[in-house]
Amino acid sequence: MSQTRQLHLGAILEGVGTDQNSWRDPALPSDASVNIDWYIENAKKAEASLFDLVFIVDSPYITPDTAPHFLNRLEPLTLLSALATHTSRIGLVGTLTTSYWEPYNVARQFGSLDHISRGRAGWNVVTTGLEGAARNYGRDEHFDHAERYDRALEFVRVVQGLWDSYEDDAFVRDKAAGLFLDKSKLHKLNHKGKFFRVDGPLALQRSAQGQPVIFQAGDSDAGRNLGAQIADGAFAAAQDFEAGQQYYADLKNRAAALGRNPDHVVVLPGLFPTLADTDEEAQRLHATQEEALSLDKLLVGLGRAFNYHDFRQYDPDAPFPDLTGVTLNSYKGHAEKIIRVAREKGYTLREAAWHLGRWKSPFIGGPETVADEIERWFTGRAADGFNLRVTNPRDFQIFRERVVPILQKRGLFRTRYEADTLRGHLGIPVPENRNASPLAEAAE
Amino acid sequence: MSQTRQLHLGAILEGVGTDQNSWRDPALPSDASVNIDWYIENAKKAEASLFDLVFIVDSPYITPDTAPHFLNRLEPLTLLSALATHTSRIGLVGTLTTSYWEPYNVARQFGSLDHISRGRAGWNVVTTGLEGAARNYGRDEHFDHAERYDRALEFVRVVQGLWDSYEDDAFVRDKAAGLFLDKSKLHKLNHKGKFFRVDGPLALQRSAQGQPVIFQAGDSDAGRNLGAQIADGAFAAAQDFEAGQQYYADLKNRAAALGRNPDHVVVLPGLFPTLADTDEEAQRLHATQEEALSLDKLLVGLGRAFNYHDFRQYDPDAPFPDLTGVTLNSYKGHAEKIIRVAREKGYTLREAAWHLGRWKSPFIGGPETVADEIERWFTGRAADGFNLRVTNPRDFQIFRERVVPILQKRGLFRTRYEADTLRGHLGIPVPENRNASPLAEAAE
Repeated sequence: MSQTRQLHLGAILEGVGTDQNSWRDPALPSDASVNIDWYIENAKKAEASLFDLVFIVDSPYITPDTAPHFLNRLEPLTLLSALATHTSRIGLVGTLTTSYWEPYNVARQFGSLDHISRGRAGWNVVTTGLEGAARNYGRDEHFDHAERYDRALEFVRVVQGLWDSYEDDAFVRDKAAGLFLDKSKLHKLNHKGKFFRVDGPLALQRSAQGQPVIFQAGDSDAGRNLGAQIADGAFAAAQDFEAGQQYYADLKNRAAALGRNPDHVVVLPGLFPTLADTDEEAQRLHATQEEALSLDKLLVGLGRAFNYHDFRQYDPDAPFPDLTGVTLNSYKGHAEKIIRVAREKGYTLREAAWHLGRWKSPFIGGPETVADEIERWFTGRAADGFNLRVTNPRDFQIFRERVVPILQKRGLFRTRYEADTLRGHLGIPVPENRNASPLAEAAE
Repeated sequence: MSQTRQLHLGAILEGVGTDQNSWRDPALPSDASVNIDWYIENAKKAEASLFDLVFIVDSPYITPDTAPHFLNRLEPLTLLSALATHTSRIGLVGTLTTSYWEPYNVARQFGSLDHISRGRAGWNVVTTGLEGAARNYGRDEHFDHAERYDRALEFVRVVQGLWDSYEDDAFVRDKAAGLFLDKSKLHKLNHKGKFFRVDGPLALQRSAQGQPVIFQAGDSDAGRNLGAQIADGAFAAAQDFEAGQQYYADLKNRAAALGRNPDHVVVLPGLFPTLADTDEEAQRLHATQEEALSLDKLLVGLGRAFNYHDFRQYDPDAPFPDLTGVTLNSYKGHAEKIIRVAREKGYTLREAAWHLGRWKSPFIGGPETVADEIERWFTGRAADGFNLRVTNPRDFQIFRERVVPILQKRGLFRTRYEADTLRGHLGIPVPENRNASPLAEAAE
């Protein structure tokens, strides 16, 4: 493993995209979100450019106004499993909610993906922001925000316990002697907690990287605390350099305060660039994209953080509305930030939708400019790397062919894979097997 | 589609196998059950031989005495998704229990597999036989047998409803006009039943075959009734011709009594042959396999139907024990049959273990003999086809290279794929979209 700090890159494979108009790009297949060939093609491109991982976002609730990619898309675990055998080095990370799954099933599926990919699986742990999801799972109301995070912590610990059901040398597989398993090396979990009771064991040995890598993206106080406890990697939401630095320092401090090595929590903000040959062209492109935005859809985007609260009911040119009674139980960190910023800046609703109802990227420019900004975030400890949104074919191509070589020339990014597993790429150690027998260890 | 009745063939990809000694075959990788390359290789071989489908069995509970394949294996949905993009015609069927999953998650994952495979997914609906599974899912006791089947029926209907969330022409994808979705063609399910409440909609359009194919394998009265209601295909457990005929007639009659076309319930018993160049050699091989069996392990196998009740506690040479108080809530149909047959025949425990503690196959012989027996079952309406267990490389090779050509020469089995979807191979119609608008249909 290389000694100097290295930039990490993820590719968010987002099909037709989660903003308003990306699906209309002539070069993008309009069924990309349900087209396995599009995903395979782009995962291979990311791997050819030595990215650490591809990432599949997810959520279990839609309305007719939901953004195009969310409306109709492949499910992360099935999709990532299909990608696993068309790639050999790149990490495969998917979102899955701890609010509406069983730990035993999650342990099996991510564990299985980790075997199929030979040690490249990652799980982005979320608690589900959208309250409407509850009604797809037999509940009238979504779990309370604080309870969601308590459940998530216990859920992850159960899953990790199940992943260690077998000691690493449990399977003898001696055909002549007729001994398949050393039964003494299979361990039940016998977990009884506040939210879950799971006896185990899991019918799966550990993988080439020991266990799948854990990611977390929560931005609220509870979300950051969860990340500090469980996350090997954090998908940060920072949209400018200063916010990036604050989040970075805060999360690493929280992890260190828990006795963890802060280098083992890799912070990867989203990177949604507008790229062109020159800065001027990129700015022109960006202006064109801005002009094509519809206020109606920006208002829907703004409402997503409030469980799709319908902001179209208000006068857009009146001050940002009073949201007393509107839920903050969805994407709490993001919703609180919208209210706070709108008040601080004295935004009208139209202005709030424009500035806060979508992802605004500071990464607009030609290859050198975007590489400079990436380097600034990296060296300024606002990021350990980035998660690049892959929708627009032009942006992805320029990034791979023009930006990555600049980052490599500057010694920031790898020029070949040095590891075979996702943990290896990220510099995250293989977790000790909690059922490792002391004798076996001593003998090694 | 061909007019004459055609034999169907499935390949149960069972890794190192669920019997005692199959894992010890020198030609079988001893990690086959967790080795994706083994599955891909054998799925491709099955497709090259024009099989209808591959099938991945499953259950969510193990003990240290569990058979080798069950102890340590890949999970069906991730595994089948990995197989989907290495094959192009063969159906991909996996087991998943309705007792410990959420319908919304199942609808998404099988729906997604159906897209990744472009219309080749199938779901074998089970209710879980092993009571111990309950304690991997927060419950003290498994659901009662009758309740399991009521839940299963409602579960499947919810999933099927979710699969029809979008009308078939809902996605306009007009880039110039900026219209992605015709919102009027997205429908909530709003299901409120005895066991489940699911609002929907699902974020996934229908697949190339409309919906995944539904399989069912229950052999109890409740299991057969469920199969008659929901199954497009039945994985039958019959171990001899007469039992095969009885099951076949019974299931088709139950389906017909419900107003269904009995030809649209395809009956596929398991086929676990011992094959060799000649009948004599196959019989010799079989005798060697029988000699290698351990009574201890046969007793464990016998106990599986009774939630791994430990039969090793009894005198093997005393009469079959009184099982008062031992659960019949696991594999009820199978457990009741064991007790009934052991009493009728006056078996000792040793004899019961020998005859009833494992799968006994009447398909032992050279290629012509096994082909004859297959034809007898097929023409005698004991089967519409078979599900071949793939573990032993020799048996699979002889079956593909010697038995299949005989079946083709006799006009029983296809000589090329005539369809691209699993429904197409099985002759099962694409289900009508319950949300199809009458106007859209009239215009077609």
